[in-house]
Amino acid sequence: MDATLAVDADDVHDARERIAGRVHRTPVFTSRLLDRLAGRSLFFKCENLQRAGAFKIRGATNRIRSLSDKERRGGVVAYSSGNHAQAVALAAREAGVDARILMPSDAPRAKVAATRGYGATIVEYDRQVEDRAELALEVAEREGRVLVPPYDDPFVIAGQGTAAAELLEEVDGLDAVLAPVGGGGLLAGTATACEGHGRGVVAWGAEPAAADDTARSLEAGERLRIAPPETIADGARSTSPGELTFPILRERAAGVVRVPDGALVRAMVSILTRMKLLVEPTGALAAAAAFEGILPEGPERIGIILSGGNVDLGRMAELVGEHGEP
Amino acid sequence: MDATLAVDADDVHDARERIAGRVHRTPVFTSRLLDRLAGRSLFFKCENLQRAGAFKIRGATNRIRSLSDKERRGGVVAYSSGNHAQAVALAAREAGVDARILMPSDAPRAKVAATRGYGATIVEYDRQVEDRAELALEVAEREGRVLVPPYDDPFVIAGQGTAAAELLEEVDGLDAVLAPVGGGGLLAGTATACEGHGRGVVAWGAEPAAADDTARSLEAGERLRIAPPETIADGARSTSPGELTFPILRERAAGVVRVPDGALVRAMVSILTRMKLLVEPTGALAAAAAFEGILPEGPERIGIILSGGNVDLGRMAELVGEHGEP
Repeated sequence: MDATLAVDADDVHDARERIAGRVHRTPVFTSRLLDRLAGRSLFFKCENLQRAGAFKIRGATNRIRSLSDKERRGGVVAYSSGNHAQAVALAAREAGVDARILMPSDAPRAKVAATRGYGATIVEYDRQVEDRAELALEVAEREGRVLVPPYDDPFVIAGQGTAAAELLEEVDGLDAVLAPVGGGGLLAGTATACEGHGRGVVAWGAEPAAADDTARSLEAGERLRIAPPETIADGARSTSPGELTFPILRERAAGVVRVPDGALVRAMVSILTRMKLLVEPTGALAAAAAFEGILPEGPERIGIILSGGNVDLGRMAELVGEHGEP
Repeated sequence: MDATLAVDADDVHDARERIAGRVHRTPVFTSRLLDRLAGRSLFFKCENLQRAGAFKIRGATNRIRSLSDKERRGGVVAYSSGNHAQAVALAAREAGVDARILMPSDAPRAKVAATRGYGATIVEYDRQVEDRAELALEVAEREGRVLVPPYDDPFVIAGQGTAAAELLEEVDGLDAVLAPVGGGGLLAGTATACEGHGRGVVAWGAEPAAADDTARSLEAGERLRIAPPETIADGARSTSPGELTFPILRERAAGVVRVPDGALVRAMVSILTRMKLLVEPTGALAAAAAFEGILPEGPERIGIILSGGNVDLGRMAELVGEHGEP
């Protein structure tokens, strides 16, 4: 373990105890047909079946359940137009903590409604003119709230690592665990869990080909920033890996592969028709890398984190139409 | 137990032992959101995640694994354009038994390909001019094969009852189990499992409103035949309950409720967006009855059999378009 890194395996262990009973231990599924397609044995960790539809509730719960009494009374604030918003809202409500969520004024109505449905107050902002992270810091300071960042936080990273920790406990003899990469919170937690598990299991990331800030940064050996990317994987449109996540990935992840959008749609369709499971584009990143041989040869028994399932059906139909049903 | 009925609880018990390890013990899922929608506690038995995508593999495996050595050598024959075809093909291949499946010449190519993919020989027939049951009997006689009927067979009924038996073992204190009704094999097995379980748990059926041959027959106290029905629930278009299934339903089922097609589409969409699970129209019958208050009041803790998930995405998109996304 490197003492300069933000999170180690003990933190993932503590996170598991802290969130136990508050999030689902999601099932692990297999499919002979999809194994044949991939030419390897795949074990799908179904975080699309997680509470609020994604792994994000793990990190949010771990962060919020670590607040001091004083912090709890002050409440939390977060910014997100996606799964992190709903996760923070739900985790906060269940902990009896007030939550304020910054969402762009053009966010999908369904997501705003779901977040409000979990009891959070929504603050709208104009994403053309306002910087959401800065706005959130202002709210945090002005109202005495704790900011719950989407990935660059030790408790959030450790919480996200619990999915891989469960998978490693449940499936013997895995060679690798493959996870989607946006800001890197899930992969950093996953890589930390793999290192803690020992036995040579390695963590790989899968990133949209058009949003390959983390792959590029790892190749360059330093955090690079890319222009705002165009990809259907809306949970992985980050432009730079995190300040805390990047050093962890450099040290503990085996690498990050690039997945084209077309492969994501094909993977979503395969998972829906073969496994009867709905995954969102970002949630299909790791599976797509395995199905289409994008992951280097070597690992034979591979854990795949299906990270989320929040996509509306109209959008799903559109994607399948544009990219062609296989 | 009524000795004149084709199947009793011991047969379901024997079926469980016979098919153990050959079919999935499917997971049981719950959803707080859907409980709120239904106003009751629902426990979803996910047979859409079953091998070959539906509960049918249970009955087919139980029948084929009960063949004598001589019968095994002669092979089996079945007729179906749907899930039973794939189930018999798969169960036969795994038992090393040759299978011939009669499918209409206008059956969806994907279903024919899947059935052939499991190693069965397909015999096409023209459903405008030929009677498939008669054709199958001819093949059985000419080639010395055993016919595996879709529902009217003691081994098939007992096999289908194993889904409810697993559910009753897993979830304490159920008041009722709700299952789709076509020819009545699944409901007859379910009702038998409920009776065997004791503790007052009752079985209800859910039938398409336009294909209510079983509801009408139960009301009349005798098997009635209806005209070929128009419903999107293609697995429940039977025109009359079975000779063996009907007396079991009369004796052991609490009743059968009628579900309009619109409610099926709404249920499919709710299950897909809330639970991230794909179910076919027939597979959503029981859930729809619970969501829309079609089931009489009384039972509070209800097992719902999601019986299958084989629907192609184009068809799914069409249905959602026609009936309107809620």
